[in-house]
Amino acid sequence: MKIVIAPDSFKGSISAYDAAIAIEKGVKKYLPSAATVIVPMADGGEGTMDALVAATNGVIYHAQVKNPLGSDITAAYGVLGDVQTCIIETASASGLYLIPEDKRDPLKTTTYGMGQLIKQALDQGYRHFIIGLGGSATNDAGVGMLQALGLQFLDCNGHEIGFGGGALNKITMIDNRKFDKRIAEATFIIASDVKNPFIGSNGASAIFGPQKGATPEMVELLDNNLQHLADLIEKHTGIRIHHSEGAGAAGGLGGAFQAFFPAEIRAGIDIVIDYSGFTKAVAGADLVITGEGQIDCQTAEGKTPMGVAQEAKKYNVPTIVLAGSIGEGIDVLYQYGIISIHSIVNGPTTLQKAVEQASDLLTNCAEQVVRTFFAYKV
Amino acid sequence: MKIVIAPDSFKGSISAYDAAIAIEKGVKKYLPSAATVIVPMADGGEGTMDALVAATNGVIYHAQVKNPLGSDITAAYGVLGDVQTCIIETASASGLYLIPEDKRDPLKTTTYGMGQLIKQALDQGYRHFIIGLGGSATNDAGVGMLQALGLQFLDCNGHEIGFGGGALNKITMIDNRKFDKRIAEATFIIASDVKNPFIGSNGASAIFGPQKGATPEMVELLDNNLQHLADLIEKHTGIRIHHSEGAGAAGGLGGAFQAFFPAEIRAGIDIVIDYSGFTKAVAGADLVITGEGQIDCQTAEGKTPMGVAQEAKKYNVPTIVLAGSIGEGIDVLYQYGIISIHSIVNGPTTLQKAVEQASDLLTNCAEQVVRTFFAYKV
Repeated sequence: MKIVIAPDSFKGSISAYDAAIAIEKGVKKYLPSAATVIVPMADGGEGTMDALVAATNGVIYHAQVKNPLGSDITAAYGVLGDVQTCIIETASASGLYLIPEDKRDPLKTTTYGMGQLIKQALDQGYRHFIIGLGGSATNDAGVGMLQALGLQFLDCNGHEIGFGGGALNKITMIDNRKFDKRIAEATFIIASDVKNPFIGSNGASAIFGPQKGATPEMVELLDNNLQHLADLIEKHTGIRIHHSEGAGAAGGLGGAFQAFFPAEIRAGIDIVIDYSGFTKAVAGADLVITGEGQIDCQTAEGKTPMGVAQEAKKYNVPTIVLAGSIGEGIDVLYQYGIISIHSIVNGPTTLQKAVEQASDLLTNCAEQVVRTFFAYKV
Repeated sequence: MKIVIAPDSFKGSISAYDAAIAIEKGVKKYLPSAATVIVPMADGGEGTMDALVAATNGVIYHAQVKNPLGSDITAAYGVLGDVQTCIIETASASGLYLIPEDKRDPLKTTTYGMGQLIKQALDQGYRHFIIGLGGSATNDAGVGMLQALGLQFLDCNGHEIGFGGGALNKITMIDNRKFDKRIAEATFIIASDVKNPFIGSNGASAIFGPQKGATPEMVELLDNNLQHLADLIEKHTGIRIHHSEGAGAAGGLGGAFQAFFPAEIRAGIDIVIDYSGFTKAVAGADLVITGEGQIDCQTAEGKTPMGVAQEAKKYNVPTIVLAGSIGEGIDVLYQYGIISIHSIVNGPTTLQKAVEQASDLLTNCAEQVVRTFFAYKV
């Protein structure tokens, strides 16, 4: 009997690793001698670094970097168990959660800290990167990150422009003579499910600006600034990112990777499947148990349970989902290899209590689910 | 594929029959061609008449009777599909729920209406009775019921005493000359899980008096009155009910059946198993799905899911429980044939919402449970 336990984190409640441990405990209550394999999962968003480091028995490093408003903070990045793949989440140094709501201002916020993390990892010798784009506080098109790596954005007086999306209109020249040469030797796999273009009504500023603190006037200014930058980048590199799919991710950071990095953009869940060891684990398994805080019809769009189930289905292994909350329209999920979906709550309760008791609820639910699934099979 | 669906009611939310229909709907979503057998269940308490009438395709009758305070009400009783077994719940005519909290007074409340229901059924020709003892508003030792059936309780002046537990001390003689002769020709199966004796610190008045409105002083008076009556009954019939197991059920109504009726007291769930057709349904089934509002370690003590599971286990059919709320200590239930227990709630929610949505929640949970149970078996 082999059971693969591969949950995402339950947002705001429990990490993917702790969720996996809790599920394993429930499985072992009924099947003490079953072989269980724990593979903490993620979909490229928040928690992806933690999940992949835990799944591969990797290491977390820290660096002193600038936060989105230029203050000094300590930010984390990970190296996987292969000792060669470095994983960096944009949110770690440049995340929206780092800035209190009343201080959020995409005219000023920078991805400089993100570039500092990459630089430190390059200094350590790493040349293979996974970059998570989710959760940024910025709309600076990655200019801060590029500045930290030596690319110079100069105004009409030949001076470096300042930080933030509000300064991009001052750029008259991009000087790459000091741009870190190690970038070109490296590979960057960008985890992003965002398809938005760099500019326009569906672009970075219009779609993601407001949640980062932009007023309608600021959105217009930011979009104009990104257009100005995209024109300069095209002139400088020949690469036209204006309407490139995914260039609008993370306040235009996607466009920076497209223009200046040897980068490949992939769906987050696919990267996690590849690097977590999940595929190896699932071969020969009898059951996969995954989970996430909220399951609904949106889950079909690149969320962890879907990716896990699809991969498991290739090996004819059924997947059962444990969810904090089950929404509408889950019927669409069955075709992808999800056998069934069970809520972990054990009766009427508040969200807060469910969050606090998530570990016990996962254990109890997992036990009941394996009891049901393996009845008369063990 | 044959699935027996045998839930109890979900108290305050959905009847056993409606719960069964909701579960069947979920089962059929995954297994449209499965043979499903619906057997609404109960444990002898509230809902037993409805469940047995629904399970056997019986009939509900009504009668004009006295409520516990002597007002006229319409009360229901049932005849099972065998067209010979009459089922009467004490609560129907003499229930605590019929009296507003500020009017509850076990010195005055009577089981007279209960006797009227029996009389009407005898008039209709029924001679085989199932009597549910739960939920009475009374502490009159069934004297009201016996009065309605012609037994006379006379005071020192030879007059009938009045209604209620407070009048029992006036009895000096029991005259059975007008007691309904048809009682002796009939059989009465009494559904009761209460083991309390007629009198004493563990007796009817002490244990159940307070919830029916008795103050400590009233409890003492009622207990003394029951002792007085028990002495007279012993003198009159030779039957000593003072400390007889179960005589304290329903405010001493249990004692009245023991002394004056050809009665057999049995656990409610056993009676329901016997009369519902569950046993016949379970033979050859692949799965039994039962359910109840609340499941915990108390469930082991004669509740519906336990009785259902134990009976199913005799035929090697596994039982899965759907519950509104899962409490502590459910591990003790597995030994009785319960495979697993799943909460129907699909995320953090209030009790009120869960109650309102019980039908949909049951359908969805049942679907997921059969998906899990029958994965790779269908």
